[in-house]
Amino acid sequence: MNKIFTSALMFAAMSVSAYAQDIKEDFKPSSKNQPGQEYPMVNSQGYGRFRVVAPDAKSVVCTLGLGGAKGGTELTKGEDGVWTGTTAAPMDEGFHYYHYIIDGGVFNDPGANNYFGSCRWESGIEIPAHDAEFYAERDVPHGNVQQILFWSKETNCLRRAFVYTPPMYGKDPQKKYPVLYLQHGWGEDETAWSNQGHANLIMDNLIADGKIEPFIIVMTYGMTNELKWGHMHEFDIKPFQTVLCDELVPYVDSHFQTIADKKYRAMAGLSMGGMETHTITLNRPEMFSRYCILSGGIYKPEEIKDKSQVDLIFISCGSKEGPERVKGAVDELQKAGFNAVSYVSEGTAHEFLTWRRSLYQMAQILFK
Amino acid sequence: MNKIFTSALMFAAMSVSAYAQDIKEDFKPSSKNQPGQEYPMVNSQGYGRFRVVAPDAKSVVCTLGLGGAKGGTELTKGEDGVWTGTTAAPMDEGFHYYHYIIDGGVFNDPGANNYFGSCRWESGIEIPAHDAEFYAERDVPHGNVQQILFWSKETNCLRRAFVYTPPMYGKDPQKKYPVLYLQHGWGEDETAWSNQGHANLIMDNLIADGKIEPFIIVMTYGMTNELKWGHMHEFDIKPFQTVLCDELVPYVDSHFQTIADKKYRAMAGLSMGGMETHTITLNRPEMFSRYCILSGGIYKPEEIKDKSQVDLIFISCGSKEGPERVKGAVDELQKAGFNAVSYVSEGTAHEFLTWRRSLYQMAQILFK
Repeated sequence: MNKIFTSALMFAAMSVSAYAQDIKEDFKPSSKNQPGQEYPMVNSQGYGRFRVVAPDAKSVVCTLGLGGAKGGTELTKGEDGVWTGTTAAPMDEGFHYYHYIIDGGVFNDPGANNYFGSCRWESGIEIPAHDAEFYAERDVPHGNVQQILFWSKETNCLRRAFVYTPPMYGKDPQKKYPVLYLQHGWGEDETAWSNQGHANLIMDNLIADGKIEPFIIVMTYGMTNELKWGHMHEFDIKPFQTVLCDELVPYVDSHFQTIADKKYRAMAGLSMGGMETHTITLNRPEMFSRYCILSGGIYKPEEIKDKSQVDLIFISCGSKEGPERVKGAVDELQKAGFNAVSYVSEGTAHEFLTWRRSLYQMAQILFK
Repeated sequence: MNKIFTSALMFAAMSVSAYAQDIKEDFKPSSKNQPGQEYPMVNSQGYGRFRVVAPDAKSVVCTLGLGGAKGGTELTKGEDGVWTGTTAAPMDEGFHYYHYIIDGGVFNDPGANNYFGSCRWESGIEIPAHDAEFYAERDVPHGNVQQILFWSKETNCLRRAFVYTPPMYGKDPQKKYPVLYLQHGWGEDETAWSNQGHANLIMDNLIADGKIEPFIIVMTYGMTNELKWGHMHEFDIKPFQTVLCDELVPYVDSHFQTIADKKYRAMAGLSMGGMETHTITLNRPEMFSRYCILSGGIYKPEEIKDKSQVDLIFISCGSKEGPERVKGAVDELQKAGFNAVSYVSEGTAHEFLTWRRSLYQMAQILFK
C-alpha cells in the first residue's frame, strides 16, 4: 500500500477554502437524493446544507465539512425539533460519502441515496461539477449494465459482476469487443463504478460523440472489505487474483462477444483497486497488456520484466493527491521506453470525480 | 383501488401467534444484512432481534413486531449504551421492510441492506422460509439482469428498466423469447423484483430444473410514488401506460430477441402494480394476451370485451389477504370460459414471499 492514497483519503471532501465568505442562498436538492426529498441541498458555491428530523435527539453531526469541533458539521435544533446545518466552507466538486453521528450512533441521511463505501452503505451527496456534461444523462443511444452471476470454485459461492455492454452490442453477432476489467477501491464493491462513477454514462457519451470505439467494461468485487483500514499490508491477493484471472475472465470470454486476447484486455483500478491492478498485472503478465492505476500507486520500470508485453500504462490522480509522484513515475516509464501516460484531475482529491475524469481520459487512449 | 390489499398491508409482518412462547437462542444474522454485520438477527422460530448503537438516544423503536405500546418493538438500553430488543412474537416467513424511530426521527438500521419500499430506501430483514430453495443461489447456469436506459419522449427524461435474460440468451441469434412485463407495488420501484423478489434466481432455478421454457422479464418503474398512501384513486394511468406500451415495449422488441407478438407478451403486477396491470390490459387489449394480478385485485368476466384476445388470467394472493375473493373471481372467470388460474400462498400476507411464490407458480403456466 502506498502513502499517496492513504494520506489523500484523509483530506477527501475537504473545503477548497477555509475562509468564510457570503453564502449564496441558491440551494437546490442534491442530485443524489431519494425521490422527492428536498434535503440535503447544495448551492452554486459548493456548500452543503443538511436537515434531520429527530426532535428528541441530543446531538446531530454530519461527517462532511470541517466547521465543527467534532470534525464535521454540527447541526442545531430549531424550535420545531428539526436539526439543520450548513458546511462552514464549500466542498470540492463531485461526489462525497457521508453519514450522521446521532446521539453517538452512525446513521444514514433519510433524504439521500445510499452508496457502498467504507464497507457500509453510506449516504451520498453531489456537488455539481463544472464539467459534469461528460457523464450527463443525454438523449443518445445507451448501453446496458448487466448483472452476471457466476459460480466460483475458488471461493465456493455465487459471485456477482456487472458488465457494461455498449449500444448496438449484440446486433452483429460477429463483432468482438476489447474488455476493460475495472476495480473499485477499499470499502467499496462492484456497484461503485456504475452508481458513484457513472462509468456507463461516460462510455455512452464518448461513443455518441465519436471519441472512442466501443468496448466492454467488467466490474466485480475485489474482496477488499474483510480488511480494516490501516491493515492493507495484510491483504492476500491470491483468492481475488484466481477469481478474476481463472474464473471471471473465462466466464466473460465465453458469455460475451469479446476479443479473447491479452492485447485487447486491460485492467484498471482506483485506490486499493489500483494496488490490485499493480499486483495482478505483474503476477500474471499473460492476462493483460494495458495497465491503469487511478489514485492507487505507480509502476516502476524495473518491476516489469518484459517490456514487449505491455502496450499501455496509464497513471492518474487528483491534483490534491500529490500528483508529482504520478508525473515522475510516468516520466521514468517513458524514458525506459514504455507507452506511458499520466493524467491529473484539477481541483479534486481522493474521490470519485477524480476517477470519473480518469476513466474519461483513459478510455480515449486505452485500446488505441 | 380495492380493499383486499389496503387492509392486508396493515397486517403485513404481523406475528403468526400472539401467544408468548419459549424463545430459542439460535439467532443468526439475517441474510439481508450488510457485509460482516451480525445484527439484525433471526431465530428458527421467526423472532427478530435488533441492536442499535446510540448511547445518548432517548428512545429507539423498531417498526417490526407488535410488542410495544408504540406499535413496534421497543429497544432498551444496556449499561454499555447499546440498545437491543427482540420481537414479542415470531414474524411471518419471508422478507419484511422496516426502520427505526430514534428520538422521534426515521432512520435505517446500519446493519441491514436497503430496499426501496414505502417511497424510501427502507431496511430489510429475511425470516428464512421453509420452501426457500426455489430462490436459492445454486450452482446452475444463471441469466443476467440488464439495466437498460431508454429516452422517453412522453416524460422527457431518461428512464430505467431491468431486463432479465435467461441463461444461454444470445448464444443463438435466431432464437426469440416470450416477454413478461412485471410491475412492483406502491412505494417500490424497478429494483424491487430483483432485490426483494429474487425474480432472476426463481427463473434460473425453474429453467435449470426443466420446469419452464426460458422467457424474458422486463421490470420498470410504475410511477406510483408521487401518490401519498390512501390517494390511489387519484392515480392517472396515462403517462405510465404510454411509456410502457408505446416506448418501452418497442424498445425491448427492437433491442432484445423477443417474439414481438401479443400472444407471447404478458403483463403482471403486485399490489398497485396489479391495479396497473388490470387497467392497462383492459385499456390496451392489443398489447398483452396474458394477465396476472398478485395481491392487487381481480378481473370480472364482464370487464373483458373480447374473450378470444385473452390467453390466460392468473390471480393470486397470500392466505392472510382474504383469498376467497381471488378464488371466487377465478371461479367466475372459468365459468365464463376464460383460462383462469388462482394461487394462494399459505401463511403469508401482503409481502414479498407471497409474490416470489406467485411468480414461481405463474411462470410455470404463463406461456403454455
